[in-house]
Amino acid sequence: MLKHWNGVERPSDEALAERLRAAREKLANQQMQVKEMKLPVLVLVEGWGTSGKGFCIGQIIKNIDPRFFKVATMAAPTEEEQRKPFLYRHFIQIPEAGKFQFLDSGWMDEVVKARLHSDMSQEEYANRIDSIKRFERQLTDNGYLVMKFFLHISRKEQAKRIARLQADKDAKWRVGKNDKWQQLHYDKCLDAFNSYLTETNMPSAPWYIIDAKSRKWTELQILETLTQGIEIALNNHALSVPLLQNVFPLVPMPKLSEITLEDKTIEEDAYKMQLKLLQGRLGELHNRLYRKKVPVIIAYEGWDAAGKGGNIKRLTGALDPRGYEVHPIASPEPHEKARHYLWRFWNWIPKTGHIAIFDRTWYGRVMVERLEGFCSENDWMRAYNEMNEFEKELHDWGAVIIKFWVQIDKDTQLQRFTDRQNTPEKQWKITEEDWRNREKWDLYEDAVNEMIQKTSTTYAPWYVLESVDKKYARIKALQIVVDALEKALK
Amino acid sequence: MLKHWNGVERPSDEALAERLRAAREKLANQQMQVKEMKLPVLVLVEGWGTSGKGFCIGQIIKNIDPRFFKVATMAAPTEEEQRKPFLYRHFIQIPEAGKFQFLDSGWMDEVVKARLHSDMSQEEYANRIDSIKRFERQLTDNGYLVMKFFLHISRKEQAKRIARLQADKDAKWRVGKNDKWQQLHYDKCLDAFNSYLTETNMPSAPWYIIDAKSRKWTELQILETLTQGIEIALNNHALSVPLLQNVFPLVPMPKLSEITLEDKTIEEDAYKMQLKLLQGRLGELHNRLYRKKVPVIIAYEGWDAAGKGGNIKRLTGALDPRGYEVHPIASPEPHEKARHYLWRFWNWIPKTGHIAIFDRTWYGRVMVERLEGFCSENDWMRAYNEMNEFEKELHDWGAVIIKFWVQIDKDTQLQRFTDRQNTPEKQWKITEEDWRNREKWDLYEDAVNEMIQKTSTTYAPWYVLESVDKKYARIKALQIVVDALEKALK
Repeated sequence: MLKHWNGVERPSDEALAERLRAAREKLANQQMQVKEMKLPVLVLVEGWGTSGKGFCIGQIIKNIDPRFFKVATMAAPTEEEQRKPFLYRHFIQIPEAGKFQFLDSGWMDEVVKARLHSDMSQEEYANRIDSIKRFERQLTDNGYLVMKFFLHISRKEQAKRIARLQADKDAKWRVGKNDKWQQLHYDKCLDAFNSYLTETNMPSAPWYIIDAKSRKWTELQILETLTQGIEIALNNHALSVPLLQNVFPLVPMPKLSEITLEDKTIEEDAYKMQLKLLQGRLGELHNRLYRKKVPVIIAYEGWDAAGKGGNIKRLTGALDPRGYEVHPIASPEPHEKARHYLWRFWNWIPKTGHIAIFDRTWYGRVMVERLEGFCSENDWMRAYNEMNEFEKELHDWGAVIIKFWVQIDKDTQLQRFTDRQNTPEKQWKITEEDWRNREKWDLYEDAVNEMIQKTSTTYAPWYVLESVDKKYARIKALQIVVDALEKALK
Repeated sequence: MLKHWNGVERPSDEALAERLRAAREKLANQQMQVKEMKLPVLVLVEGWGTSGKGFCIGQIIKNIDPRFFKVATMAAPTEEEQRKPFLYRHFIQIPEAGKFQFLDSGWMDEVVKARLHSDMSQEEYANRIDSIKRFERQLTDNGYLVMKFFLHISRKEQAKRIARLQADKDAKWRVGKNDKWQQLHYDKCLDAFNSYLTETNMPSAPWYIIDAKSRKWTELQILETLTQGIEIALNNHALSVPLLQNVFPLVPMPKLSEITLEDKTIEEDAYKMQLKLLQGRLGELHNRLYRKKVPVIIAYEGWDAAGKGGNIKRLTGALDPRGYEVHPIASPEPHEKARHYLWRFWNWIPKTGHIAIFDRTWYGRVMVERLEGFCSENDWMRAYNEMNEFEKELHDWGAVIIKFWVQIDKDTQLQRFTDRQNTPEKQWKITEEDWRNREKWDLYEDAVNEMIQKTSTTYAPWYVLESVDKKYARIKALQIVVDALEKALK
C-alpha cells in the first residue's frame, strides 16, 4: 500500500493552522470522554528514520492531561527481553481502560528490521505476522482502539534531513546507524515496509500512512485521524465480535463425569518412595532446562479444596528457588482489571530457563468470570480461542506448557470443607464464597468440561489429576512434569 | 488453514440428534428477530465436489419461512455475465435487510477454479482476492452478516462418493467433470483452497471449515455456527466501523467557489457547428467501442435546474439506441433501500460495449443522504472509499468512467426556478422539494466540495461543467466524452 500511496495534498499554511487548532481542541475535549467511557487507546507511530516520530508524539500529547497518557520508546529488545516471547514486551505496554498509550515504534520496527538484516527466515517472518495479527485482533476484539500510523518521507527528504543533522554539531548524535542504512537501502526498505503494511492492514486496525514532509502537517494528519478514530470507537460500546473457529490441533478429552476417582489411590510406602524418586529426577531436570534455557509454564486449576496447594508444594519442593516462581492468582486488582484480561499473565511469563507455576490461571475467564457475569457472553465465548492463541505464542517461543485440572467429587469437597470449618488452624482456608461456589457445582462442571474440550491443544494439553487421594494426585503430577521435561530436553 | 485443520469430533448419534433439534429450533426462533432487526444474512456454502453443499442448504432452509429466504446456485458465469465485471453477478445476489440468502458456491468457487485451470495469472488472482476482501468488508461494514462455510471431505471420502454415485444409474449424472478432476488433483486443489481460505479469512467475515463426512453432522455444524453468528450480529446494532485511508490516486480538484462561470459561454453559431461535429465523432466512437467491447459509464450530478437533462439529451442524440441506456435515479424503492446502497447501481452496470448514463448517481449517499440524515455519519464518511472501490472494480474490468458535476450559481438557479414556476409547461419540473434543497445550498456546496476532493480518482475523475450557459456545458461534456473514448480506443 505504501508503494501505491499517492500522498495527501498539504493545505495552505493558513488552512493548516486553522485545522490544527480545531483538531487539537477536539482531542483535548475527547480525553474526558475516553476516560468516562473507559476506552483504552493505543497509538503506534512507526516510520522511516528521521521522519520525526518522537517529535510528533511530543506535540500530540500536549493536548492530553499527563495523568491520561504514557509514552514508550521501543528500542531494540534488551537481553532480559530477549529471554521472553516476542510479543511480551509489546503486550505489557497496552494502556489501561480510559487512557492513551503512545508507542514510538514497536513490533513493526522490530520485525521489519530483523527481516531486512536477514537474520529472520521467511517462515519465521510469516509466523511473526500471524502473531501480530492475532495480537492486534485480540486488542480490538476486547474493545481497544488501535491506531497505527506510518510516517513516510521520500529518499530525497531523508537524505536532506540526515545531511542537515550531521552538519549540526549538537544534533549529529541524532543520526543513527539505522538511518544511514535505510538511506543506502531505501528501495529495499520500501519493499519491506510495503509488504508489512499490506499484510497487517486489518479493517478493525487499519494502517494510516502519513505524509511526514513537514512537522505541522504530520501532526495535523495524525490528530485528525486519531480524533476520528476515537469518535468512532466511543460509538461502539459493548460491541460483539464474530467467534472464530478453532484452528489449533486438539486432544480429545473425557468429561469430568467419566473420570473414576475411587480407584486412583496409592499406598503410603509407595508414595514416599515415588515422591523421593520423582523429586530427585525433577531437580536434575530443572538444572538441565536452566542450562538449556527452556521455559516452563505449569498451570493449576481445580475444585476448591481439591488439593492444589499441597500438590504445588511437592513440585516446588524439588526445585531450586532461584529458578522458579509461583503465582497465586486472586481476583484482578483495579489496574489489572482495566486491561485485557491476559495482560497480567503476560507480565508473569517466565524467562527462558525458568519455571512459572500458576495457582489458578487465565482460565478464570471461562469459569468464574463466565458464571458470575464479570464479562459478557461474547467475551468468554471468544476466550477459548484467545487462550489457545496465547499458549501458541508461548509454545512457539519454546515453552513447555502443562495444565492440570485437580479433580475431586462433590462429597469429598463437603468433607474437606467441614473438616476445615471444624479445625481452628484450617479455618482461614474456608470462606463464605467457597460455600457459595459449591452451590453452583453443576454449572461449574459444565463450564470446566467445555473449557477442557476446547483448550486441550496438542501443544498445551490439560491433564486431570484425580485427587480424592491427594498423594496419588501429587505423584501423577510429578510424573507428568518429569515426562514432559524429559521429552523437551531430548 | 485447511491444511492445518484437525477436524472436529463428531458427537454420538444421540447427542447429535439432541443438538440438531436444539439448533433447528434456535434458527426457527431467530428468523423473526432477523426480520424485526432488519438483519441481512448472507450464507455462502463452498466446498469440495460431492461434499453435499446443495443437500445441506436444503436441510437448513426447512427451518425458515419461505418468505424470508432465497437460494441461488452459482454455476459458471453465463455469456451475458461474462460481459459484466467479476463481482456483478455476486453483488446482485445480496439479501434484503431481514432476509437470508443462501449461495450454493460463489466467488470462491469461480476464482479458485480459474486459478486451478491456470487461465488466470498470479497478478489477476491477487486482484481478485483484493476485490473479494473489499466486497465482503463493504457488506459487513454496512451491517450485513456474512457467514462463510467450506465443506471439507478427504480424498478417500470423495473417491467413495464418486464411486457410489457412478454405480447408481439414477445418480450417475450427479458426478460432474469437475468432481473427477478434483479427485485426480486432490493435493493441488487442497493447496489452492487452503491459500484462498487463508487469504480471505477476515475477523469480520471469517471462514468456518465444516467436517462434511456425514450429512446430519454437516447440518449441525452449520446450524450451530450460523445461529451463533446471528446472535452476535443481532447484538451489534448501529455499529460504527473505522474509516480507511484512501489508497487510490487522486486528481487535485478546485473548490466550486474557485470556478468562474461568467466567462464560460459559446456563440450560437459556434455551438451549432461544434455540436454537429462532436456528435458525429461520438457516433463513430460508439460504433467502435461496441465492436471493441469497451463499457462506458457516464455519471451526472449537479444543482437542480443546472441543465443535466438537456446535456444528457445532446449526448444520447449522437448514440445508437441499441447501445446505451439512461438511468434516471430517484429515491430508492423499498426493495432497493433494503440492500447495500450500491446494490441498485451494480444492477445497472452496462454490458461490455455499452454505455450507461446515470442521471444522478451513487453519490447521493454523500449529498442528500448525508444532509437529510438518511444514513449515519459513519455511513457517509465511509462511502467515499466505498465509491472509489466500486469505481476501481469497474475500471479494472475495463470501463471508461466519466463523472460530471453540472455547475451553476445560486442566482442562476433562482432565475430558472422562477421561470419554471411561471411557465405552465415547465411547472412539472419544479417542486416544493427543490425550494427546500435550495435553502440548504451552502451545506450542499460543502458536501459537493468534499465529494469532489475525495472521489476524483485518476481512473474515474470528476469534470465540472460550467452551465450558466447551457450550450457551453453541452459542448464541454461532448468534448470530454469524445476525448476519453478516443484515448480508450487507442
